[in-house]
Amino acid sequence: MTVQNPALIDRACLIVHGPDQPGIVAALAALITRHNGNIVTLDQYSSDPVGGDFFQRVVFHRLDLIAAMGDIEADLAKTLEPFGMEWTLTDQSVPKRMAILASKSDHCLLDLLWRHRRGELPVTIPMVISNHTNTAEDVRTFGVPFFHVPSQAGPDKSESEAAILKLLEGNVDFVVLARYMQVFSGDFLEKVGVPVINIHHSFLPAFIGAGPYRKAKERGVKLIGATAHYVTEDLDEGPIIEQDVVRVTHVDTAEDLQRRGADVERAVLSRAVAWHAEDRVIRQGNHTIVF
Amino acid sequence: MTVQNPALIDRACLIVHGPDQPGIVAALAALITRHNGNIVTLDQYSSDPVGGDFFQRVVFHRLDLIAAMGDIEADLAKTLEPFGMEWTLTDQSVPKRMAILASKSDHCLLDLLWRHRRGELPVTIPMVISNHTNTAEDVRTFGVPFFHVPSQAGPDKSESEAAILKLLEGNVDFVVLARYMQVFSGDFLEKVGVPVINIHHSFLPAFIGAGPYRKAKERGVKLIGATAHYVTEDLDEGPIIEQDVVRVTHVDTAEDLQRRGADVERAVLSRAVAWHAEDRVIRQGNHTIVF
Amino acid sequence: MTVQNPALIDRACLIVHGPDQPGIVAALAALITRHNGNIVTLDQYSSDPVGGDFFQRVVFHRLDLIAAMGDIEADLAKTLEPFGMEWTLTDQSVPKRMAILASKSDHCLLDLLWRHRRGELPVTIPMVISNHTNTAEDVRTFGVPFFHVPSQAGPDKSESEAAILKLLEGNVDFVVLARYMQVFSGDFLEKVGVPVINIHHSFLPAFIGAGPYRKAKERGVKLIGATAHYVTEDLDEGPIIEQDVVRVTHVDTAEDLQRRGADVERAVLSRAVAWHAEDRVIRQGNHTIVF
Amino acid sequence: MTVQNPALIDRACLIVHGPDQPGIVAALAALITRHNGNIVTLDQYSSDPVGGDFFQRVVFHRLDLIAAMGDIEADLAKTLEPFGMEWTLTDQSVPKRMAILASKSDHCLLDLLWRHRRGELPVTIPMVISNHTNTAEDVRTFGVPFFHVPSQAGPDKSESEAAILKLLEGNVDFVVLARYMQVFSGDFLEKVGVPVINIHHSFLPAFIGAGPYRKAKERGVKLIGATAHYVTEDLDEGPIIEQDVVRVTHVDTAEDLQRRGADVERAVLSRAVAWHAEDRVIRQGNHTIVF
Repeated sequence: MTVQNPALIDRACLIVHGPDQPGIVAALAALITRHNGNIVTLDQYSSDPVGGDFFQRVVFHRLDLIAAMGDIEADLAKTLEPFGMEWTLTDQSVPKRMAILASKSDHCLLDLLWRHRRGELPVTIPMVISNHTNTAEDVRTFGVPFFHVPSQAGPDKSESEAAILKLLEGNVDFVVLARYMQVFSGDFLEKVGVPVINIHHSFLPAFIGAGPYRKAKERGVKLIGATAHYVTEDLDEGPIIEQDVVRVTHVDTAEDLQRRGADVERAVLSRAVAWHAEDRVIRQGNHTIVF
Repeated sequence: MTVQNPALIDRACLIVHGPDQPGIVAALAALITRHNGNIVTLDQYSSDPVGGDFFQRVVFHRLDLIAAMGDIEADLAKTLEPFGMEWTLTDQSVPKRMAILASKSDHCLLDLLWRHRRGELPVTIPMVISNHTNTAEDVRTFGVPFFHVPSQAGPDKSESEAAILKLLEGNVDFVVLARYMQVFSGDFLEKVGVPVINIHHSFLPAFIGAGPYRKAKERGVKLIGATAHYVTEDLDEGPIIEQDVVRVTHVDTAEDLQRRGADVERAVLSRAVAWHAEDRVIRQGNHTIVF
Repeated sequence: MTVQNPALIDRACLIVHGPDQPGIVAALAALITRHNGNIVTLDQYSSDPVGGDFFQRVVFHRLDLIAAMGDIEADLAKTLEPFGMEWTLTDQSVPKRMAILASKSDHCLLDLLWRHRRGELPVTIPMVISNHTNTAEDVRTFGVPFFHVPSQAGPDKSESEAAILKLLEGNVDFVVLARYMQVFSGDFLEKVGVPVINIHHSFLPAFIGAGPYRKAKERGVKLIGATAHYVTEDLDEGPIIEQDVVRVTHVDTAEDLQRRGADVERAVLSRAVAWHAEDRVIRQGNHTIVF
Repeated sequence: MTVQNPALIDRACLIVHGPDQPGIVAALAALITRHNGNIVTLDQYSSDPVGGDFFQRVVFHRLDLIAAMGDIEADLAKTLEPFGMEWTLTDQSVPKRMAILASKSDHCLLDLLWRHRRGELPVTIPMVISNHTNTAEDVRTFGVPFFHVPSQAGPDKSESEAAILKLLEGNVDFVVLARYMQVFSGDFLEKVGVPVINIHHSFLPAFIGAGPYRKAKERGVKLIGATAHYVTEDLDEGPIIEQDVVRVTHVDTAEDLQRRGADVERAVLSRAVAWHAEDRVIRQGNHTIVF
């Protein structure tokens, strides 16, 4: 059973990408029309009109969408196969299930919980997992289950990762690392099987790795930033979803940078999460198309 | 005879707007496909999927576009008539002809001339008209004709306006007021018959009228801005194309505001001009849709 | 008894302003030196070196500050009297007492409570007062007392204002209106006797009065903003402390503007509150000097 | 003989930095007072009030400054010697002499020339040197001498560097590399003997080295930037004066990034140049204090 957003009932989101070719927009629009869909918004991008890649996001309204989904999917498969294109069709009234992983810092975690309560994020939050306990009461005040999975000392993280996997398995559609300070193994990322979004506390690719605010202070930069990206095995190298910066001066200490950076982190992460939840982000190699 | 941009040969830009209805995207995409066009970019917006207004901009590639324009236009007329929609089809390789009107300040004028020389603005500049002569040599260095039309003393501007109209008539597709400090009569705006873009030196609707930097200093604002808008009979009330701001402090004098504002003015105006020249701006009542 | 911030023990903040004159910086620096103070930061501004106004904020360290305060104050009175200048000397280890007034919206209120808990705001929060009850539980989770004072129907607000005054009297050093949706009478502002900071949900002076997001949508602006200002009897005309904006497009509905504006509102208000709490803001007529 | 700015006659700028210690502000203010100076602006910063570094910039007015300079300098030497501090005293009415080095790109070069003509930069420009000739006519239109020093093929740049040094020697107070695309040898930097400011076309330390816009496109960043810094032997590692960024999307090609980045480059460089010319920038190791 799924929780439904009444305002989005009968709205479908279709994502299509693959090699660009003449007639693809017309073919898709005709398909939606013959299934009695009415296009609400359409975004399209071609990396190159000749020999490039084609990306499209269409939101359309269709009465009794649920009943029609099977037919539309069958038609999409038939229509897009000759074009060699990938596609996903989602019912927008079904919110994605988002798990949040956090550590001691609460700014990103609280901002996501609060935005969710305000109705700004089209997700459900089945759980928050943390390797610390300090945020448990806050999380539960929002009516969200809190699970404590302590960090495992030493380089082998297999037990704590297994405990996290067991909690996530079958329960979530994506995972958000809201300043979660543990690095996952490649094995974990393979097994988790859903997209993982991280917020990195620097303007990547500047200051890769640990201690970016300290490094920023040492280098004497005049702006600091934050980066939300999909997690891949290559640490800090995953596809970037969103970035932003804030101005600093010589007066700011490394602690000031951390405090001011926290504001950028929560803003950037919440935008990236909303866009992902609304199927606005398409991954293409190490890049993202954000519609 | 028209000057052509070789990179844009065989590219058409189609703008469509009117009452939204099911099937319009599909109908337009099918039309482009049956005229052997290949969609390069497509932007679409509906103010409301039920009973709202529909706006679309499509750029498509079509070999031998010039030969096909007549057929496509006829088809568009036939296809869009039942929908009650307005449309324009332009050949993107034909740059719009832009006249610039200026006064003593040179920052907006020089920025436009320089961007044009760099190839950033898809326009030709048949003339600069000024009520002062101080920029004549600079303008001519860019290979652009300069005409001096002095301001007319007193409230009656009919002679100077007539002189300007005579220069513009038949020679331009739009007019840019690059800090031109004379207010045109309604009669002029009616006769000029092409869009007129103005840069106002405030963050409209704040500080309407004369002396916005002085007023901003008096009010003690912490940001100042600039606004590019289409000129209508209602001074400072025309549809806004673009705006931006810059941070100021108590230290800045009214003169400092003017100097720092000049940077925002030229940036905002150049963006608005480029968007207009690329047919990215659709006027709808007192609003703009910017694709 | 006052709550103390140990990191700021023995730090004094001296604010001086008045008619500029030669030697005033030297006189103040000499005074601090002869009381064994060591200057940590010094900010100075003159509106005009000849016949203008002088503003200075100095933070200095002095061992056993509390014991020395009386002597320093006596010396300041003696030294500054011939110059006709106003001054305030505060012990930075004593946080200001801040009351928050709110209505139904929680975004500004929660952001202040979060930041306070993280140690970002050098204040104590003796109470939150609201004319609604929806935020009571959230507020009390932070260990802050919550008082419900319902709005009074009709134009006469004297009873509800009296109830608020009774709660505030003697208990607070300044009041923050965190999207409090009632307008105070001039009588209230006179009686409250402490600075009152408001967050207005527009980029003042644009869209003065009620419904600024609706007005912004109607005018078709490309940026929306928020303004933190001291409250005076002239609604929306008080001295501006801080402003900021965010970019919007034709796609954003009036509801989107409200949601996106909320992020600017809480950011702008939290900066203004921090600066006020740190004695960085000096009022001069309808302006502010922010050091 | 020096060119004078009448508005700044009798204004001195004193920069002092060194180990922080009690009484230094008072000692300097007293010194200025006893030489009949009146402080116009004073900025002060201590990296740490205990054992840190002290930085101060004071602008003061003193009638017949030129006649008094010798006495003030002698007093400064005597006063600051016991503190072990460095200082410079400059007559603000004497503009610094700035040489500009450029290559083919004209955006930074022209922006500096325009701003100088408008009176925004308190400098004289005795020469522009380029390894290309395409900007010669533009430069001479501004009444500025243009010298062509072709690049030397191969790794040995000693002849072209010697030619440049001969032009600069004794004629300039600082050098601006306005997108000059040659890397100077350590030997050149030692011999030139004046500060050299460079504009790097990335948000350092991201995308160090050549081709930053191509690298930015490859990494898929959502913001691009520019950095003005003092040139040191370590390429792209010198003290940063100013940085800024602009938002980009997946739609922007590497060429778009270059074009949009050019706007950031010229804005950042012009701010850095103005601040350096006004003695607002103090170098401290690999950092800058910008007052």
